[in-house]
Amino acid sequence: MSGECRLYLVTGNKHKLEEAGAILEPYGIKLEQAPVTEKLEIQSESLVDIALYAARDAYRRIRLPLIVDDSGLFIEALKGFPGPYSSYVYKKIGYTGILKLMEGVENRRACFKTVAVLIHPPIEKVFIGETCGVISDTPRGMGGFGFDPIFIPDGHTMTYAEMPFEEKNKVSHRYKAFSQLGEWVRKSRIKCL
Amino acid sequence: MSGECRLYLVTGNKHKLEEAGAILEPYGIKLEQAPVTEKLEIQSESLVDIALYAARDAYRRIRLPLIVDDSGLFIEALKGFPGPYSSYVYKKIGYTGILKLMEGVENRRACFKTVAVLIHPPIEKVFIGETCGVISDTPRGMGGFGFDPIFIPDGHTMTYAEMPFEEKNKVSHRYKAFSQLGEWVRKSRIKCL
Repeated sequence: MSGECRLYLVTGNKHKLEEAGAILEPYGIKLEQAPVTEKLEIQSESLVDIALYAARDAYRRIRLPLIVDDSGLFIEALKGFPGPYSSYVYKKIGYTGILKLMEGVENRRACFKTVAVLIHPPIEKVFIGETCGVISDTPRGMGGFGFDPIFIPDGHTMTYAEMPFEEKNKVSHRYKAFSQLGEWVRKSRIKCL
Repeated sequence: MSGECRLYLVTGNKHKLEEAGAILEPYGIKLEQAPVTEKLEIQSESLVDIALYAARDAYRRIRLPLIVDDSGLFIEALKGFPGPYSSYVYKKIGYTGILKLMEGVENRRACFKTVAVLIHPPIEKVFIGETCGVISDTPRGMGGFGFDPIFIPDGHTMTYAEMPFEEKNKVSHRYKAFSQLGEWVRKSRIKCL
């Protein structure tokens, strides 16, 4: 790869665009918002299947090198719930609903996962970032979003929501997926716009 | 309409096929299992959107007059949760999970909904069946499936799971959607196979 590489992120969320853009910048990638912002998401228990389907659908529509990502919180004692439906579940029952479901549950293991799919024909690559930890007993912290106030990553005592932005970004599932993608792009010889 | 009308139900579940077939038979409809059994289900809070998308996708693949249905339990105090994701949520947290979320919640209103989409080009019709009631305090009954043991339809004291099959079928959301469909086919002049 030579010079700058422009890729498009399929999202309607400016905050997510900025966050991913900051992770990819050191790899010489300029991330821009794709001209489609709506993802076609299928129902599946697999984040990979959901992100792949959405990425292929978006590529058919815009024909530009793009990234689609999808994330979820997988709680062991709840058989992976809320998983791929984390944002829906968050909207409906919030983290208080999850804490209620976890009342009296001893096994508090959970993993946050992000899948990022890069489509740059003929290349189609899947990157997976995962950060495991435990569900806290009570919500703590004001930062982040979604289930961040109830998730404590391994090796830490603070929840995601208590961590300063830069610290969370060093351990986060989203950071892991996007930095792998950046690393791969830097090492590969794909032609960029 | 003259004579018998053959329609295809997109489902991999023989039990659902039999149940819907029994509802449609009095309307002169012979229901058969479609040669595709996998539905392409999108993520949406609207059962109508999910069923329409799946029906159009199935029609593109088999080009036969078909029905796709989708159901969900919408609990008022949980902002409609689990809604379109009822079968996923049932698999993960079961009705005990729902009862846990409803502990101490006074408003126990809930509605079961079925959407049945008929595609018989150029016709595309949507039928909606809804049965409202309350979430019980404890699970009761051995019949039915899914959330049936915790749902008491209005005007009844038994849960769906306590009702004899024939009685449940008289009040069920699924019955309402399919009998409307049957009624419509009988009255219409669509050409049947």
